[in-house]
Amino acid sequence: MTEPVVARPCAADVLTRTRDLLDPALRRAVGTLPHSMRRVAGYHFGWWDARERPVGGAGGGKALRPAFTLLAAEGAGGEATAALPAAVAVELVHNFSLIHDDVMDGDRVRRHRPTAWAVFGRAQAILAGDSLLALAFAVLATGTDGGPDSAADGRTDGVPVLAGHVQSLLDGQSADLDFEERAEVGLEACVRMAEGKTAALFRCACALGALYGGATPDQSVLLKAYGERVGLAFQIVDDLLGIWGDPAVTGKAVHSDLRNRKKSLPVVAALASGTPAGAALAALYRRPVAEPDLARAARLVEEAGGRAWSLARVDGLLTEALESLRAAGLTPEAAAGLEALARLAADRDR
Amino acid sequence: MTEPVVARPCAADVLTRTRDLLDPALRRAVGTLPHSMRRVAGYHFGWWDARERPVGGAGGGKALRPAFTLLAAEGAGGEATAALPAAVAVELVHNFSLIHDDVMDGDRVRRHRPTAWAVFGRAQAILAGDSLLALAFAVLATGTDGGPDSAADGRTDGVPVLAGHVQSLLDGQSADLDFEERAEVGLEACVRMAEGKTAALFRCACALGALYGGATPDQSVLLKAYGERVGLAFQIVDDLLGIWGDPAVTGKAVHSDLRNRKKSLPVVAALASGTPAGAALAALYRRPVAEPDLARAARLVEEAGGRAWSLARVDGLLTEALESLRAAGLTPEAAAGLEALARLAADRDR
Repeated sequence: MTEPVVARPCAADVLTRTRDLLDPALRRAVGTLPHSMRRVAGYHFGWWDARERPVGGAGGGKALRPAFTLLAAEGAGGEATAALPAAVAVELVHNFSLIHDDVMDGDRVRRHRPTAWAVFGRAQAILAGDSLLALAFAVLATGTDGGPDSAADGRTDGVPVLAGHVQSLLDGQSADLDFEERAEVGLEACVRMAEGKTAALFRCACALGALYGGATPDQSVLLKAYGERVGLAFQIVDDLLGIWGDPAVTGKAVHSDLRNRKKSLPVVAALASGTPAGAALAALYRRPVAEPDLARAARLVEEAGGRAWSLARVDGLLTEALESLRAAGLTPEAAAGLEALARLAADRDR
Repeated sequence: MTEPVVARPCAADVLTRTRDLLDPALRRAVGTLPHSMRRVAGYHFGWWDARERPVGGAGGGKALRPAFTLLAAEGAGGEATAALPAAVAVELVHNFSLIHDDVMDGDRVRRHRPTAWAVFGRAQAILAGDSLLALAFAVLATGTDGGPDSAADGRTDGVPVLAGHVQSLLDGQSADLDFEERAEVGLEACVRMAEGKTAALFRCACALGALYGGATPDQSVLLKAYGERVGLAFQIVDDLLGIWGDPAVTGKAVHSDLRNRKKSLPVVAALASGTPAGAALAALYRRPVAEPDLARAARLVEEAGGRAWSLARVDGLLTEALESLRAAGLTPEAAAGLEALARLAADRDR
């Protein structure tokens, strides 16, 4: 990572700007939903509490994925505002998947708050997730907020792009669940799973940005390659944080992924290493990992090379992503913003 | 129902024809899904067993809703084949909602087979339902099977129509769940719930058929009114069958809705009747209904007028639906088919 960088904006500033663009459009779109759905969605987004009283703070996470959409569109020479429906759709799909994920995993806390299902029950959370997924397509197709008065002045071509990436996302989540029950998981199968579960939506965000920004076919291919690599790097970093992350930052217990015997990428890389430490880890993973063994499991992942493999892979992915980005010949300011986002996604301290 | 009818085709023949049109397109669309999703979807549709071995029989229910789409399109002067993407989308949405419904209700049997979640687990069933919902929009937007090679030659205008009705469906399901926990449910609130939960997708089927068949605005309004009334009649009949239906036909235990203390329309009509029988039913419903009390509960619904209210409402809805149908001035053969479907939906022996 020693390439000279002409202008390196701070990722936080980039995200503040794209979030300010996104937020009103996202709120308008969610505002078109029936009250029963809106109430759960707005709680999940952090806009109000369980009784619909407004809460302070920005809420709702960083809105990282739609930032890729808006910057990709600008980078291709388009207007961010023209890509807003696509950005909103991407953020809606991301949050649909979070709501359903929490139901499937039984996770009770997200972003330091009780999850939607923990507050409203599993059934209402399933419905609210469905609602955000359907809304994403409406927003994309109408080019507006997806409400009943939306003029049908949208574009058809975004819908199959989004739908195809949603299928990849679901396929990745399905594999992730399967892996939990399997004794042996190959490292490449695990990478493919992460490409579906996480990278697909980053790729989609860039694909839609390219489409709505009027990118050339070459630019579109390069932006998708960039997005996919950034997304995979993001997931690997997430997996590292799931083992060694600071609970105050991640909002999860220390070693949480090990406690749940997750087959995350560092763990699978360690298990597949053929090292004595990998074999010892496999033995530990055969039954629930007892609390005193968690630190040892983390050490074994490291000794078996799982951490080093992950860090090297993140570096390699970041390099490839930035190569694609430069080759795409985007407008300089958007390219600098996308570079900042790539570095943020690949940053172990994020 | 004494109006002279010129040609009255048998509903079964109508459904056989539309199912034969639908089936290959539906299978092509589902065939584009990742294997992890396709395997659960095809099991749910009755195309194969849990290990993907083909099973005999048609499977997958009557495909009633897409028949409305195809006939509405033909009735408006269009081609059924042009409306096939819309019909496939409607059937996909219906089955998405069934798969998620079974997860939410914990129902283990549908169409005399174990439900998708009972076979593949709740998480995989949630994902497969999500997958069918996303596929519905892809099929609609591309006008093809929604696969990756689909040419984007579809039309945008169907997507918000489908999405809006999906929101009504979800809103109705949400209200249905809420009612289970409420002591008092008003009859009109219960009707509105059924309009969302069930009638919205019938209305949507007709709205999309009108759109894809090139209906005039007046025809579209009338077809939507027809679809909504038929859908509500269908739900009321379903509620009657949930109390008095023959288990061999319904595939459910006798009195199943009473055993689950469902606030179905006949029950709510009885509870709201202000009669002594209604009060006695309310007292019974305050705690789980014991097996020996089920027959008494059914008698109380009848004595309180819940059954008579339901039958009268079904008759009224059928009359209104057929009035709208006639006013729409559709091609005679399609109109006769739609009349047969309306009578089927309103038929207590269906």
